[in-house]
Amino acid sequence: LTQGKDAEGNPFWEIGNNRRIGFSEFKGTTLVNIREFYTAPNGELKPGKKGISLTLEQYKALLRVLPELNASLQAE
Amino acid sequence: LTQGKDAEGNPFWEIGNNRRIGFSEFKGTTLVNIREFYTAPNGELKPGKKGISLTLEQYKALLRVLPELNASLQAE
Repeated sequence: LTQGKDAEGNPFWEIGNNRRIGFSEFKGTTLVNIREFYTAPNGELKPGKKGISLTLEQYKALLRVLPELNASLQAE
Repeated sequence: LTQGKDAEGNPFWEIGNNRRIGFSEFKGTTLVNIREFYTAPNGELKPGKKGISLTLEQYKALLRVLPELNASLQAE
């Protein structure tokens, strides 16, 4: 697993093709971010438009549906 | 779990605030979509800009990192 920390010290994990899942704090709220990054002209990796920031509640809902989603995917 | 099928027959699950996770086929490739929807003036629910479509490989990478992510979240 390729893991790192961003400029704010928030942990993230690479999931391929410059896409990452990680989490951050925003105004006291934890957000789980799944986002694509791109390399800026200065070589810095910056967050792109493709992505979504989930509240903890939405993330927990996502975790709950994964078994059904995976079963449905495997039945394809 | 609130589950449904979209106009193309692709399954999705609600994760809150008009956000869904589901999957679809695009040119023979399965994509796992996590996306926010909005209600169009005609009442139809349409995909919005916030979201990301993961390849199966990226989705499997995401599944692999979840235990570490969850442990890190709980250590907060």
